[in-house]
Amino acid sequence: MARITSVEVVDVRFPTSLTRDGSDAMNKDGDYSAAYVVLRTDDPALSGYGFTFTIGRGNDLCVAAAAQRARPLVGRDVDALCADPGGVYRELQSDSQLRWLGPDKGVVHLALAAVMNALWDLAARRAGKPLWRLLADMSPAELVAAADLRYLSDVLTPEQAIALLADRVPGRAARIEELEGSGYPCYTTSAGWLGYSDDKLRRLCEEAVAEGYKHVKLKVGADLDDDIRRCGIAREVLGPDGHLMIDANQVWDVPEAIEWVRELARFDPLWIEEPTSPDDILGHAAIRTAVAPIGVATGEHGMNRVLFKQLFQAGAIDYCQLDAARLGSVNEVLAVYLLAAHFDVPVCPHAGGVGLCELVQHLAIFDYVAVSASLDRRVTEYVDHLHEHFTDPCVVRNGAYVLPSAAGYSAEMHALSLAEYAFPHGTYWASRDGTESVA
Amino acid sequence: MARITSVEVVDVRFPTSLTRDGSDAMNKDGDYSAAYVVLRTDDPALSGYGFTFTIGRGNDLCVAAAAQRARPLVGRDVDALCADPGGVYRELQSDSQLRWLGPDKGVVHLALAAVMNALWDLAARRAGKPLWRLLADMSPAELVAAADLRYLSDVLTPEQAIALLADRVPGRAARIEELEGSGYPCYTTSAGWLGYSDDKLRRLCEEAVAEGYKHVKLKVGADLDDDIRRCGIAREVLGPDGHLMIDANQVWDVPEAIEWVRELARFDPLWIEEPTSPDDILGHAAIRTAVAPIGVATGEHGMNRVLFKQLFQAGAIDYCQLDAARLGSVNEVLAVYLLAAHFDVPVCPHAGGVGLCELVQHLAIFDYVAVSASLDRRVTEYVDHLHEHFTDPCVVRNGAYVLPSAAGYSAEMHALSLAEYAFPHGTYWASRDGTESVA
Repeated sequence: MARITSVEVVDVRFPTSLTRDGSDAMNKDGDYSAAYVVLRTDDPALSGYGFTFTIGRGNDLCVAAAAQRARPLVGRDVDALCADPGGVYRELQSDSQLRWLGPDKGVVHLALAAVMNALWDLAARRAGKPLWRLLADMSPAELVAAADLRYLSDVLTPEQAIALLADRVPGRAARIEELEGSGYPCYTTSAGWLGYSDDKLRRLCEEAVAEGYKHVKLKVGADLDDDIRRCGIAREVLGPDGHLMIDANQVWDVPEAIEWVRELARFDPLWIEEPTSPDDILGHAAIRTAVAPIGVATGEHGMNRVLFKQLFQAGAIDYCQLDAARLGSVNEVLAVYLLAAHFDVPVCPHAGGVGLCELVQHLAIFDYVAVSASLDRRVTEYVDHLHEHFTDPCVVRNGAYVLPSAAGYSAEMHALSLAEYAFPHGTYWASRDGTESVA
Repeated sequence: MARITSVEVVDVRFPTSLTRDGSDAMNKDGDYSAAYVVLRTDDPALSGYGFTFTIGRGNDLCVAAAAQRARPLVGRDVDALCADPGGVYRELQSDSQLRWLGPDKGVVHLALAAVMNALWDLAARRAGKPLWRLLADMSPAELVAAADLRYLSDVLTPEQAIALLADRVPGRAARIEELEGSGYPCYTTSAGWLGYSDDKLRRLCEEAVAEGYKHVKLKVGADLDDDIRRCGIAREVLGPDGHLMIDANQVWDVPEAIEWVRELARFDPLWIEEPTSPDDILGHAAIRTAVAPIGVATGEHGMNRVLFKQLFQAGAIDYCQLDAARLGSVNEVLAVYLLAAHFDVPVCPHAGGVGLCELVQHLAIFDYVAVSASLDRRVTEYVDHLHEHFTDPCVVRNGAYVLPSAAGYSAEMHALSLAEYAFPHGTYWASRDGTESVA
């Protein structure tokens, strides 16, 4: 009978600000980082790995919070924990003193995500399955018991959620087979970071099209003339049938968002992403009405299921971009997928950063197999960097994620990567005297 | 020319869980705590004091975050900082790496509140005025320059805010004179903590009435039969003309809230406070419609101005209970007061905890003098504990806050209190081996 013997939390930071990978109108110089959690057991062959994602300063706060969040797990029986991930989630979530610092948002919630991601990874490894299959093998009642449905019963009761999932059980095996052939469709953001030159933008767009992508996303919102020029380049490369998405990373107030997006409408964008504050449900609804038929997308800063519930209730978004490391792990992600299916809004998860692609491929696959059972209007983000640090990196072929087959949630990093990029004592940072920001 | 020479941040925790002061349906055993910031200058007679409030575990996270937030202030000229609190706020707030951990919510935002509260205290001390008067002496344009109006222009532009304030300038002096006579009306929560016995509840309600209070608040939501019995006791003591408020501290889903409050309607409550998730704008709107004429109140966990904007837009609340240590200090509090005045919703600030009464008295007085110019439906919370730790404790007489007269934001704690309750090395906690929770 294995027990959790210790929790290790590592502050891992990559100096991405050096190359301006990830630069956008709000975030000019992020150092992509992870508060990385390892749940060790007394079986040396069995550990659980998880993380939350940040962009540099403050990653230490998530590390400290994750250590506090995980403390109640030490000494506990692994079988019991893995048999009831919903119960463990609710136990950790309901620590009332830590709850005061949210609730269900900010650093303590990011930390909960990191810890519970590690527990889900542990559960999948113990079962010898990739996470998407662990979930796809669970019954509707088991899935709903694991999901965080608190504060949602005005729109979705547990009974309704079970019925929704039960309705999709019959086709599960066929949909798995289908995805094993085709993969899960994705799009690339690697071309469009704000800090890239026009030449680099054009070259990367051309490469993306050559690699089979039908969607390309550009960062906008810093300067309208630049945006018009850059959108023109991307549309020219994509041709009239490719999909161009634009992403403002929250830089606008509502009236400014409407004006700016109307200026870019001539490039026929599929969606405008994060046009304003991620908290502004009614603002997104107003923007959506004003810029239709351009879609509105948001969610990477969507703090919790209560926010998403309202985005759906208010008809505020066309695309839901939940984040696997900002929501409280699979438990809360399940709730948002259920809500989205209930309201028939496609989920196109946010990815990129550190390891988010590794996580969201499992979620998107599971959604198709067991929740939405649809690929219509669904495309998952893919950003081509930092995968080399993971032991089971995602694989993209012909614009689609190949189904992961190794046991777990694909969240484990290489020991050598940790040794180099642990902050501030890893070899990379120690050689810079632990200077926090490299930009 | 004074400069900021250092920032000290102290983790202060009071063992309130021993007496169940502060117990409610969600928070059964809080240890009232503060992440306490001192901005020292090279003038030994001039420092700034501020804090955010938590209930125990995780206060260390706010302490660590406040130290990071305040770092850019060290070495800066005090006159320049005090002349442009809006600019300083925006500078600290826009640290994009820390922003990722919110934005504008959770630990990093609580920490911003602590630091900016200290800067406002410093500014008021430097001016030799209590904070409420420092604010009341500012012009409409100066106040609006200090306010955080980002993401609000769809409902309130800076020009509209200036016009609103300018409209109230003529009566400022008369309203100050009025409050110097009467004080600012408050109500007490000290009677109604959930952990108190019926006898203690009755005795405390009787004492409150004898002391001149017209409002008493009870915690509800754990057990309906208990609530019915306790509301009966309070209503009996108050008589038909006293105001009874009830507070569920977020324990219900929306449908449950509506059912439960209808069961308590016979006791004629003035408001139901925090009936559900603090993030659920549309949920509060639904509850308000269903339980009218009972009012709906929320705000102590209202994370930022964007949330309050939507609560007002959706007609979701009758009373706005902003929190001086959860919103990003005076800068964001100003924005919420302006929005509330624009929508004609009364603000009844949350208080209690550690030092919140000391802070909110300044805000409520300022609101009457310069923003809403109304006392109608307005009453500020007062809880009678932990004031002895402050050098300029609030004074309540005949159910009203007496106007503070000392320079500053009343946020300074006694050195002896810090020596005793600093965690984990203060004398109180050291004698318990730094055991984190006392309950």
